[in-house]
Amino acid sequence: MDEATLSRDAFLGGRLMLCQPKRGYRAGVDPVLLAASVPAKPGQSLLDLGCGVGTAALCAGMRVPGLVLAGVERQADHAALAIRNASLNGLEMEVFTGDLAELPAALRQRQFDHVIANPPYFRRDASVAGPDPSREAAYGEATPLDIWVAAAARRTAPGGTVTFIHRAERLPELLTAFAARLGSLELKPLVPRRGRESQLALLRGRKGGRAAFRLHDGLLVHAGDSYGGRADYTPLAAAILRGESALEFHAAR
Amino acid sequence: MDEATLSRDAFLGGRLMLCQPKRGYRAGVDPVLLAASVPAKPGQSLLDLGCGVGTAALCAGMRVPGLVLAGVERQADHAALAIRNASLNGLEMEVFTGDLAELPAALRQRQFDHVIANPPYFRRDASVAGPDPSREAAYGEATPLDIWVAAAARRTAPGGTVTFIHRAERLPELLTAFAARLGSLELKPLVPRRGRESQLALLRGRKGGRAAFRLHDGLLVHAGDSYGGRADYTPLAAAILRGESALEFHAAR
Repeated sequence: MDEATLSRDAFLGGRLMLCQPKRGYRAGVDPVLLAASVPAKPGQSLLDLGCGVGTAALCAGMRVPGLVLAGVERQADHAALAIRNASLNGLEMEVFTGDLAELPAALRQRQFDHVIANPPYFRRDASVAGPDPSREAAYGEATPLDIWVAAAARRTAPGGTVTFIHRAERLPELLTAFAARLGSLELKPLVPRRGRESQLALLRGRKGGRAAFRLHDGLLVHAGDSYGGRADYTPLAAAILRGESALEFHAAR
Repeated sequence: MDEATLSRDAFLGGRLMLCQPKRGYRAGVDPVLLAASVPAKPGQSLLDLGCGVGTAALCAGMRVPGLVLAGVERQADHAALAIRNASLNGLEMEVFTGDLAELPAALRQRQFDHVIANPPYFRRDASVAGPDPSREAAYGEATPLDIWVAAAARRTAPGGTVTFIHRAERLPELLTAFAARLGSLELKPLVPRRGRESQLALLRGRKGGRAAFRLHDGLLVHAGDSYGGRADYTPLAAAILRGESALEFHAAR
């Protein structure tokens, strides 16, 4: 990839530096929040489905020492950047290039303690295809949401977790897909500001889980009533984005 | 019904008085919150499925002048109390006795602008049947949740709304049932205290609606960190329970 087309961006308060294309899909706070929410322990394994340049997996790796990282990405240039980003930050990450609907054979033989995904956000039938193929692949959802959940569930070890971050408006579909394959579902809304509806939510399920569904109080992201720049993150959201705090579903507040 | 087995209880800050059996299912805040959330206008019609002694329908009738009220209830003694409670409070309410799975013919020919329900909370297979048949009928869910939603959708006029209040743990099932028959779904969690998971949630759908699913910021019910009696309702929750405010899904806060 032409170096001139890449930017180097700081995540987790500067502790994680990531190379990513200047154009097309660019990692924002979503994969950082996703990574912060994974209930992973040192020595466990994590697979990031559609890992892009590795943002979510590497954020999780920075937070949990000894977490064994793997990712799969359809776009070969992004997969290559994920490998490079791991190395750049002194982390190990195994990256597979391949399609979710037909995962590489080596990956199909393995299961992980935790599987995460930040699937593309817009339905192809509801959006106009953009001119940039990378942006289209990341945003345009060539693979139906159900296939993402099915692939995630299959690659999860018994007792392991699947966590997705996704648009709130896709929740009915996402919940139905999770409920068909996973148990102990838990929903964590992300509340942009007090009184505003969620644009994003985290959904987690456990393979073989049998607990009742839980609807947690939302994580409040911004403190002010209207846009006041980055400085108006709530203290908890700011600590999570700096990589100093996990995102607990069942937080005291 | 033996008068000695009945109590007379105040709702909406004393503006609504309801006779209900001392034993068995007794109306709490749930039907009051449900009624406060119905986006009904004067002159429209409302059907309460499983109306019990009429709590939700009559609360809605107190708030919206000229709302045409109807209810259907399986237990004949509760249906009779609903009629008596309407009269006691100077409201008109048509009450049908019958089963949701097989509604009376007169009701099957009608549709309403708004249909509401507060279905029984416990799955029969997950709870031990109690000795009190009335309590069992109201809590024990003889009729599967899907049948409640199907009946509600059929009795709703095009463009009308269906609103349920239910246990948060049943949301995956409830959302699937709503999504199969209604559009423009909106979820309003009820947050018992800041940081605590929801025990209850309101779900609304619109017949023929095509808008995307919306996940609203939850209504905070109690203000304190731990139980402090009735006095610790948040000002908004207290105003709703007194019948002085509607429960807006998309509230400023």
